[in-house]
Amino acid sequence: MFGKLLRQIMDEAEGGLAALVMGFDGLPIETVVNDSAMDVESIGMELSVVLHQIRRTAESLQSGQVREVSIVAEKYTTVIRVLSGEYFVAVVLSPNGNYGKAKFSLRVQSTRLAAELTA
Amino acid sequence: MFGKLLRQIMDEAEGGLAALVMGFDGLPIETVVNDSAMDVESIGMELSVVLHQIRRTAESLQSGQVREVSIVAEKYTTVIRVLSGEYFVAVVLSPNGNYGKAKFSLRVQSTRLAAELTA
Repeated sequence: MFGKLLRQIMDEAEGGLAALVMGFDGLPIETVVNDSAMDVESIGMELSVVLHQIRRTAESLQSGQVREVSIVAEKYTTVIRVLSGEYFVAVVLSPNGNYGKAKFSLRVQSTRLAAELTA
Repeated sequence: MFGKLLRQIMDEAEGGLAALVMGFDGLPIETVVNDSAMDVESIGMELSVVLHQIRRTAESLQSGQVREVSIVAEKYTTVIRVLSGEYFVAVVLSPNGNYGKAKFSLRVQSTRLAAELTA
């Protein structure tokens, strides 16, 4: 079920390279990948470290819960959506992927993914 | 000049609370603020720590240069744009600010801000 939803997010992002659902502890729940050169588990672990830092920062600035983080780099655009206090979903796009659609799809599918996680 | 450009970004973001140009060392070049309760220098310093972490991550994942980072939290949305290897610009919005316009304005003004920094 997670795989199906992640695949859908990747397709809708038009240029999705990888997607994953992961715990903040760095343990993956599900990963899908279009580009076999991508080490999606390492990406996920690195993202979990970044998210930890961002959540600490949000706490110290009293910003409330972090919902979404986007990182645009030269070669990849990454959109992360927090699913719960324990899990997040992320999609990695190529620079010509559809960033707006990726964000939209991630937002829509987040509800389903979160429901699956508590099911 | 920095102040004028930051003010313009905040106005265009419709709901901009604060904006700043800062060095990655955490030293502010210019800050503007609409909500006097905001400690914009602390925000900037925290953001510089987050950006450091993201740049380290991007390096280890060979993602190339980081260009833009957005963080959507319950109370604030923050959009950061990297201006050079040494400086970044950020705008903090209220949840009903115009995120899309903030990103667009930041992108447009970045060129001018970067030019000012090397002037």
